Amino acid sequence: MNSPLHLDGQLLIGQRSLAGIPAAFHAVDPASGRTLEPAFSAAAPEDVDHAAALAQQAFDPYRQTTGEQRTVFLERIAAGIEALGDTLIERAMAETGLPRARLEGERARTTAQLRLFAEIARTGLWQPVVVDSALPDRQPARRPELCMRMIPLGPVAVFGASNFPLAFSVAGGDTAAALAAGCPVIVKAHPSHPGTSEWVARVLQAAAAACDLPLGVFSMLAGPGHDVGERLVSHPAVQAVAFTGSRAGGLALCRLAQRRPQPIPVYAEMSAINPVFAFPNALAARGDAIASGFVDSLLMGAGQFCTNPGLVVGVGGPEWDRFSAAVAEALAQRPAATMLNTGIHKAYRAGVDRLAAMTGVARVGEGQGSAGTCAAQAAVFQTEAATFLATPALHDEVFGPCSLLVRCRDLAQMRELAEHLDGQLTATLQLDGVDNEAARQLLAILERKAGRLLVNGFPTGVEVAHAMVHGGPFPATSDVRSTSVGSRSIDRFLRPVCYQDFPASLLPA
Amino acid sequence: MNSPLHLDGQLLIGQRSLAGIPAAFHAVDPASGRTLEPAFSAAAPEDVDHAAALAQQAFDPYRQTTGEQRTVFLERIAAGIEALGDTLIERAMAETGLPRARLEGERARTTAQLRLFAEIARTGLWQPVVVDSALPDRQPARRPELCMRMIPLGPVAVFGASNFPLAFSVAGGDTAAALAAGCPVIVKAHPSHPGTSEWVARVLQAAAAACDLPLGVFSMLAGPGHDVGERLVSHPAVQAVAFTGSRAGGLALCRLAQRRPQPIPVYAEMSAINPVFAFPNALAARGDAIASGFVDSLLMGAGQFCTNPGLVVGVGGPEWDRFSAAVAEALAQRPAATMLNTGIHKAYRAGVDRLAAMTGVARVGEGQGSAGTCAAQAAVFQTEAATFLATPALHDEVFGPCSLLVRCRDLAQMRELAEHLDGQLTATLQLDGVDNEAARQLLAILERKAGRLLVNGFPTGVEVAHAMVHGGPFPATSDVRSTSVGSRSIDRFLRPVCYQDFPASLLPA
Repeated sequence: MNSPLHLDGQLLIGQRSLAGIPAAFHAVDPASGRTLEPAFSAAAPEDVDHAAALAQQAFDPYRQTTGEQRTVFLERIAAGIEALGDTLIERAMAETGLPRARLEGERARTTAQLRLFAEIARTGLWQPVVVDSALPDRQPARRPELCMRMIPLGPVAVFGASNFPLAFSVAGGDTAAALAAGCPVIVKAHPSHPGTSEWVARVLQAAAAACDLPLGVFSMLAGPGHDVGERLVSHPAVQAVAFTGSRAGGLALCRLAQRRPQPIPVYAEMSAINPVFAFPNALAARGDAIASGFVDSLLMGAGQFCTNPGLVVGVGGPEWDRFSAAVAEALAQRPAATMLNTGIHKAYRAGVDRLAAMTGVARVGEGQGSAGTCAAQAAVFQTEAATFLATPALHDEVFGPCSLLVRCRDLAQMRELAEHLDGQLTATLQLDGVDNEAARQLLAILERKAGRLLVNGFPTGVEVAHAMVHGGPFPATSDVRSTSVGSRSIDRFLRPVCYQDFPASLLPA
Repeated sequence: MNSPLHLDGQLLIGQRSLAGIPAAFHAVDPASGRTLEPAFSAAAPEDVDHAAALAQQAFDPYRQTTGEQRTVFLERIAAGIEALGDTLIERAMAETGLPRARLEGERARTTAQLRLFAEIARTGLWQPVVVDSALPDRQPARRPELCMRMIPLGPVAVFGASNFPLAFSVAGGDTAAALAAGCPVIVKAHPSHPGTSEWVARVLQAAAAACDLPLGVFSMLAGPGHDVGERLVSHPAVQAVAFTGSRAGGLALCRLAQRRPQPIPVYAEMSAINPVFAFPNALAARGDAIASGFVDSLLMGAGQFCTNPGLVVGVGGPEWDRFSAAVAEALAQRPAATMLNTGIHKAYRAGVDRLAAMTGVARVGEGQGSAGTCAAQAAVFQTEAATFLATPALHDEVFGPCSLLVRCRDLAQMRELAEHLDGQLTATLQLDGVDNEAARQLLAILERKAGRLLVNGFPTGVEVAHAMVHGGPFPATSDVRSTSVGSRSIDRFLRPVCYQDFPASLLPA
């Protein structure tokens, strides 16, 4: 691949680098507050239209490529990301404040996702063909021959997420799934990590050229505000939208997509507090281990995960008190961690202050402080179930290393609380064998509330696998029928078509 | 089953018959204009809330029934509908103006659908379980065990369609699929056939009782206006909506569903003109047969099918002229047919008058007239491709036995026309072997435009089968990812859930 030595801050539209609106924004190192070079271009309205028109032109030829061609394309992207080596990791560290080990892990996840979808494209695993053969003698009329297959929806707009600069960004899961499905992709890069995005987008651009794919199979747009994304989602060529981010952002995209002359699907992953239900026998048997596992999960990535455990629910009593003391103790030993950007950091501080000021909510413990510009001090609060049930604001996510412990009177109140939860990405049960019967009753409720249920684990760490569901009822996502991680995420970019009485010579391969 | 001797015009909510707002409306025989007894109740707001609350209560116990229990329930509904015998057929004839043979055929289709979903519930065919086994020794961290299955969405609101009083109504395809999936169903009966709806709803009510299912697994509401449906779609208990009807109606439901605090999926099947592309060699070889097949398809059910062929596209020349003359000749021999109700009849008349008045549009031929109150005289018009392309109003559906022949300059213009079509349920190709190459180029476009593609058939007649797709891009439907006919329609009422590291004792069966 063509591997330039430095970032040039331009848009990548088809096979070209374009200046757009030059020098529109910079990346900032959240750890130091330092502005990072170079300046980045923003897409002007005509750049958005240009990328969308190219994607539309690319759609028919790209969807007619073989599975093997898409496999080669995706594998080449994975290899190209690896070939960037430390250049990519160091830029991502500077732009996100995330530590090296985390970003190296995320890179491995990203390339694994690309290779999973390369394999899916090769095997056609999720694009089954269904056939009903003709019944020529059926009465009162013959049955025609029917063949059904899945075809791609069309060009997809993918929004990069701030909290996963690689795995949910330019070449993240949605891009991999959409390309495997046969959809051209236009990425709106997240303005928090434009350099990381440019490096990866160049890999995609080079891979498309090397595979001789149509020009518009991939483009990357950028911009500091909402206007680029809004124009992109409103463009008639775009046929689906994938987004990971805030509830306000996701809902705004849903409204835009519905207001189009032709509405389109929006897969927005938005907000969740990922409740953990700690049953009495489990707390009695291993309360300290649960406390320590919980604090690890809460602080991972400075709490900036969609699956961060923002709520722990248990039954009051000495085991619960011991658990909450162990949480406070573990927390006190944890240093502050740098958050992704000043906006997220400010919102986190405001969320913590809001909780601290609420009647009936007490601070259980906190992590260590720091003078760093975007340093997050972890915080855990506690309240009674009755207060939680009566206070809608306590159900909202505080994005970052903040969680709320909720003490219930008994198991019945635990079920009542579960019944009043919003939709979630995950719900976790900490239980011992003796807790099983009580757990069973709770599970009937939680199945209605979440996309993934866990026993004796913690919700952070989303496996890329066939059986994974990273999705859930509103407001966790805008489309409960879908997952954004794992093999089945290809379904979001496909639709069925039936071929009736086609001669073999006209049937698609 | 408990088989009463006459209709009582009440709402059926759970296991009760309720008066609601009594005597709110009557059915009318469209052939004679005669009002039919009895008077029917409309649902008051509290009746809607009552049915929705019962459905919500029924959801957990109903979704925990076994596949076999749902199979027995669905088979009992099918048998109950058959046991109604002529009582049902005669009432449906009086309420819809549809002839006996058509309604007997539709009844067979309806019971076949119920039995198809009974079989699906038994085999679990469309609810596959996916497992990723644990990898305890994986580095850097073990992989947990993941199991994924599909679970039902929740209570479903089904809107009866005017044009299929049995197959897309109280116990139609959506009801069968939703019940098989494990979703309670609340039907809003179509006010054009309230008696037919009551007979079928009683069968459902009796089957639910005989199978000892939770009270709210099925309810039927009625009402002459939009308020019942609006309240139903807005009710927090309802988790999905299935609708077949007008574009205005479907879009109104989509807007309502999006405006809820928790938006929900709406599967609205709305409008389509189902283009037929007649290739030159096919017209030369068998133009008369195509003309006669087309007129049969156009007039079936007084043209009141979602798959009615409202557009025929060909290349000008002597074969085309012979084809259009043959259409006129066949049409002239066809008697008028009674439409479903005065509203539909009035809209049809207005649509035909609008076409007749348009510049550049000529009448090719018409069917026989009649003095009947709701009698539709078939009409076929012709225009040039350039006029069609320049006139958005010519792309709109005229619901009824009316179609437009469009003459293209050449095959390139045929493709241009295809590219400018709205989304469709179907697209049909009439071709001979020699036309194959031209057809292939057109198919690449039509795959983007329709849910079902046919060769040398006609679009009316939608098989209930595994490979059927009765759906398509907007505005044909509101959700291109879905079908309303065939096995796969169960997907619209399911969502995936992942179980991580569950002990065998807690995993669902």
